[in-house]
Formats: sequence, structure tokens, C-alpha cells
Amino acid sequence: MMTDFSKTRQAFDLPDGVTYLDGNSLGPMPVGAAQRVARMMTEEWSQMLITGWNKAGWYTQPRRVADRIARLVGAGPGQVVMGDTLSIKVFQAVSAARALRPDRRVILSDRGNFPSDLYVAQGLARAVDAELRVVEPEEVEAAITKDIAVLMITEVDYRTGRRHDMKALTRKAHEMGALTVWDLAHSAGAVDVALLDADADFAVGCTYKYLNGGPGSPAFIWTHPRHADAAQPILQGWMGHRAPFDFDLAYQPAAGIERMRVGTPPVIALTALDAALDVWDDVSLTDLRARSIELTQAFIAGVEANCPEVVLHSPRDPQQRGSQVGFRHPQAYAVMQALIDQKIIGDFRAPDVLRFGFAPLYNGLDDVARAVDGLTRILRDRLWDREDYMQRADVT
Amino acid sequence: MMTDFSKTRQAFDLPDGVTYLDGNSLGPMPVGAAQRVARMMTEEWSQMLITGWNKAGWYTQPRRVADRIARLVGAGPGQVVMGDTLSIKVFQAVSAARALRPDRRVILSDRGNFPSDLYVAQGLARAVDAELRVVEPEEVEAAITKDIAVLMITEVDYRTGRRHDMKALTRKAHEMGALTVWDLAHSAGAVDVALLDADADFAVGCTYKYLNGGPGSPAFIWTHPRHADAAQPILQGWMGHRAPFDFDLAYQPAAGIERMRVGTPPVIALTALDAALDVWDDVSLTDLRARSIELTQAFIAGVEANCPEVVLHSPRDPQQRGSQVGFRHPQAYAVMQALIDQKIIGDFRAPDVLRFGFAPLYNGLDDVARAVDGLTRILRDRLWDREDYMQRADVT
Repeated sequence: MMTDFSKTRQAFDLPDGVTYLDGNSLGPMPVGAAQRVARMMTEEWSQMLITGWNKAGWYTQPRRVADRIARLVGAGPGQVVMGDTLSIKVFQAVSAARALRPDRRVILSDRGNFPSDLYVAQGLARAVDAELRVVEPEEVEAAITKDIAVLMITEVDYRTGRRHDMKALTRKAHEMGALTVWDLAHSAGAVDVALLDADADFAVGCTYKYLNGGPGSPAFIWTHPRHADAAQPILQGWMGHRAPFDFDLAYQPAAGIERMRVGTPPVIALTALDAALDVWDDVSLTDLRARSIELTQAFIAGVEANCPEVVLHSPRDPQQRGSQVGFRHPQAYAVMQALIDQKIIGDFRAPDVLRFGFAPLYNGLDDVARAVDGLTRILRDRLWDREDYMQRADVT
Repeated sequence: MMTDFSKTRQAFDLPDGVTYLDGNSLGPMPVGAAQRVARMMTEEWSQMLITGWNKAGWYTQPRRVADRIARLVGAGPGQVVMGDTLSIKVFQAVSAARALRPDRRVILSDRGNFPSDLYVAQGLARAVDAELRVVEPEEVEAAITKDIAVLMITEVDYRTGRRHDMKALTRKAHEMGALTVWDLAHSAGAVDVALLDADADFAVGCTYKYLNGGPGSPAFIWTHPRHADAAQPILQGWMGHRAPFDFDLAYQPAAGIERMRVGTPPVIALTALDAALDVWDDVSLTDLRARSIELTQAFIAGVEANCPEVVLHSPRDPQQRGSQVGFRHPQAYAVMQALIDQKIIGDFRAPDVLRFGFAPLYNGLDDVARAVDGLTRILRDRLWDREDYMQRADVT
């Protein structure tokens, strides 16, 4: 293994005593991020004012940051662009894919998809007279039939961590004449995503999970080069215009992925993300995947050996799993509150799932051991059985 | 005048010697913003991690920040929400308004609208089989006929500063059965916007101009309470769901303006904006408007008395003007470069417009005098006539 994960770990300044297994929801702050943002604000915004768009390179920042992410998802430079939120980018990708299959009206997805993706597709379907068809995750491959326009799938299930076979599903989709849109929210920075190798058509992802861009950091979108100049976005904003500063009254899409830009880029947020991506410079995706499997396997083995009260909610085969592990328990919410009280931070997903994300950049086998020990004690001694742990508040 | 503009001016730390007349493109940094963002990053994100969504109130931040903006646009608390970019919010508002007039298909706008709004409407029109009709600004009122579904207008023209009569156009629209969508990009923080008083239907705006939220800061959207529970957004994201953390597979819109939320809110950017809004706490909109008129009138008078080479490109009547002034000159690009070299920063808008924005929060009569003097010298001595000033680069 060439990647030095003890070094990447030092790039994060986690609170004392915390075992953080929730990077699949919100990645921790890389120490360089706060400094970089402060500099951007006091040296660029404050001093350059409007000229920062050129002098500080804000205008091209969405492309530069995107190129750093391209490597992490198996795409090429110039193929990815940043902006908006993941839901907006799902809309862009699915609407563009659908428009490339105008004679078909079915968008196929599965019940393991993150609900927001399904909501976005429902809104689109209502607007453009399409149909969203949702099947069980295991039924996706069989459900790809010749009436499908777009297969819209989240590669790694947000609750179970189940990983779809991107290559096989894409192949089947293409055989049936459909296009694919992959949501990489729980994949990018977690597993060895290989978009070009899988011959996928569109992909989108968020950057606040395993990429550690900060709460609500901008999303990314990728279009395969074969579609990049043909895809027509519904959300036509000036930053995706061929010549934004000509102020034409008619929209003309920019060449390639640039057309997927919409409004003015969020410079402060992109600056935090850019700093967070520094941590990835010397990380190989092969090593990342090996480390992730090592951690999740150790966690499953430890919990199953010590906690008969919980049931594995994730695939046992690591090849079918991302970098997170779910266990079910009837009092999962209270159990997670007890864990958090012991500074072991995972999260709860309705109705009964304890979810633990393992981020190779900063999690190690010591975190696995602490989490197993903590969970074992909490379940054995019923430490979760407290009224204050039962009072459920909305958490993300 | 009760507002102390010498005090609001101290909230900005502009570079030495700079006269900044481009706050209509990018507002300067309020000194409190960098500090607030640093604290959010190092004390909230870094230390609270995922629990920041509740403990630090990130989850409700889009509403809290929006309530501060509501006052500045004549709307009530709970009627505005933050998120995304202005182009996305234009899409949300126009698509929702159109859906409330399903038997009509024309979206009416004018050639003075910011092009991105027209692009967004073109994309929407293609997707939902509507028609975008664009007329001259002076023809808008007459063009509001009984086939119009939505009147989509930017209140203050981004080049000329011409201000539409929101109340009169809204009245006419309602008489004809149409709904109105007002883009407040060049109004919010610049003039005394009064949405409820004008009985408008929808409004959207950006926050990086006169509200000083920073480059690419989030947009806002307002829905009149009479439509808030009926408007159905096309962009259906989980943050606009009635119960986001139930993770239902079917979208159910939240009550009121909350349904216009889409994805995860941009916390770092909203924090900078929140700090920037502190400056507005003691500002009255009546005083703001009076101060703005004082500055723009003085600038027009000064330039016209000293610079016969330029032609006023803005309405002479201050009641028909926002807080910016345009002058035309055949070599406007080079003239603006010469001004910027003298630290008098306005901007150029194609094909031949010199644009100057006057922000009452930090601009004073001293800035007016410096700008008039600088422009006078540059034109009289043809200081703009240099090859390097002619080489045009894209600027925003």
C-alpha cells in the first residue's frame, strides 16, 4: 500500500476523544480549510473586490475544483463541473438524459435510492410527462426493459451501504437503449468509482460527505464526453452560456460540461472544498478501497462476535458494499444517542438502522475497536434504556 | 434622516484609496464576515461535526437569514427562504406561477431583463410547452394581455438602472389574470422594495450585490402568503419535503415557503451572509432610498456638467431609477479600465455602457466627487486611449 493514511489522518483535527463514524453524512473539517477560507475572504474578496473574478480565478474555480474530483471518480479532466446542490444536479442529469431519449418516458430507479433523488424525478416527470418507476434494489437489472429512457441509481445505498454493479447495470441499460445517471453521494471518496471504465452516461455527487467540503458544499456533475455537446439542460443559466458576458438574449449552450453550470458559482464554499481536496493529492483509489474494506470487515466481525442484539443490515460480501455499515436494532435511535454520549458518532436512519461510515482518510482500526467496545457495552448493559435517549429530534 | 450612514460605512474595510462603485455587481466584505465564518468553521463544523445541524442551528439557518431579508423587501417573517442561486430561484418561481395558471402558456418579460432570467425561462418554456414573449421595457404594461400566465420582470434594469413600477404592473397583471414574478437582484438593499404593498405574487433575488453576502452567496425566494400553500415547485428536493427525515419515497411539499427549499443548505456561505446582514439592523428603507437618490443625482449632475463625451443611459427621473447610473461612451471598455487604474471601480457592460452603482451603506458624496473628477480627467485628456486598456477580458 503506497498511500500513507497516517499522514492523511493528520490533516483532520477531530475533537479530543471522538471516534467519528459519520463522515458519510458530514465529513470533518480538514485543518487547512478554515485558513484557506479566511485568506480568500480577507485577501481576495476584501481587497480585490469585483476584480477577484479574474485576478483570483473565481470564475474558473468550478472547473479547477472539478478536475480534482474527476480523478476520484474515474473521469477525465474537463469532464466535471461544480455547482448548486446534488438535487439540482440530479435534475440536470436526468432531464438531459431523458431529452436524449425523447421517444421513451420511463425513468427507472430503486427504493434504495436517496429519497431526494426520487422527489426530483417525480417533479421532473410531472413537468415533462415522464414516468418514474421504482423497484426493489435487487430487481433493478431485470427491470431495465426497452421502454426505459433513463436508469437513475445511487451507486451506494445511503442506509445499507449496498453497492450496485455500475458496469453491469450500465451494460444492460445500453443493451436496452437506455442511458444511466449515477448518484455518487456515498461513493465519491469512499470507493474506487470508475465512470469511464463503466461507460456510464451521467453522474452527480455531493462533496460534504467523504470529500469533506463542509456543510452544504457544492455538488458536481459529470457527462460522458460522447454526450457532453448533445446534452441540453433544462436549467439554463448564464454561466452555462457559450459567452456569458456577451449578454445575448437567447441561450446558447457552452461547449461540453460547461453547459451544466447554472448561476454564479459559490466562491467561499468552493474555496473550502478546494482546500479539503488537498488531502487527496497522494491517495490512490486502490489503496482507499482496500483500507475501507479492511475497516468495514473488522467492524462487522467485531460487532457480530459481541452484539447478538443487532442484525447486519449491509451486504456481507465487501464487493457488494460501500464504505458504510448498517445494523438494525428495535431501539436504534436510543442506542445511537447512547453511543454519541460516549463520543462514538454514527447516525440513525429511520426506522431502526444504526449507520456507521468508515472514512479511510481519518478512520483506523482503533476507531473500529472503540466503536465495537462501546456498542457492546451499551447493548449488554442496556445503557440506551433512558427516557432522554428516546426523545427523537430531527437529525440529518 | 435617522439612519447613521457614517456608522454603516465603518462596517466595511475597503482598500486604501478605492472608490468602489461596483457594489451592484459584488458588494464589499463587511469586516464582521470573515471573523464569523472563521468561528463557524473552527467552532461549529470542526468541533460539533454532524451535530452542528441541530446544535448550531444550521438546519433552520435558511429561514432565519431569510427573515432578515424579508424586512428589506417589504415582506413578512416566514415568507422568504434562502438557497441555491438566483437562476434556480427564478426557475422555481416562474414554474410555480405558471402551474397556477395552467390554461395559459405565455411568460412575458422584457429585453431589459438580465439575460440569465430569459435563459431560464427559455429552458422552462421548452420543457413544459410554454412560450416566452419578450418586449421592450416601455411596452411591458401594454403587453400584459389575457393570454399571459406569468409576468417575469427584473424590477431594476441591470444596465440602465431603470426601475419598473412594481405596483402598477402588478395591478395590470392581476386585472388580466396573470401572476407576477419580480427579480430583485438590483433592488434588494438598493431601493425601498415593498412586495406586500405592491401585492406581488412571487419574488426572487441574489444577495451578493447590495446585500454584500460574498461572491456567489445564496439567493432568496418569496411567495405571497396567498400562494404559499398552493405553489408546487418543479424542483422538489428533500429540504422542501414536509418531513425530510422521514425519508418517505414520495414527495409531499412542506407548508408555505419551506417547499421552495431544495437541497442541503450552504452553511458556510449563509454564515457569511448572516454576518453581512448585521449592517442592516438600524437602516431604514426610507432613508436608504433618500440617500441613494442624493448620490445618483449628484453623480449625474457632476458628469453632465463636466463630461460632454458621454450620454446618460439611465432615466433622469430618480423615481424611475434604482441606485445605479449608466453612461454610454464608444470606448466604454477602455474608459472603465482607465478609471479602475485610478482606483475608481465601476464596471463595463456590453456594448458601450459605463456602469456605476451607489450603495448608501458605504458610498458618500466624497465618492461621487472622486468619480466625477476621475472621469472628467480621463475623458478630457483621453487617458483611455492606450492599447492595454482596449484588450478586453471577460469580467462580471
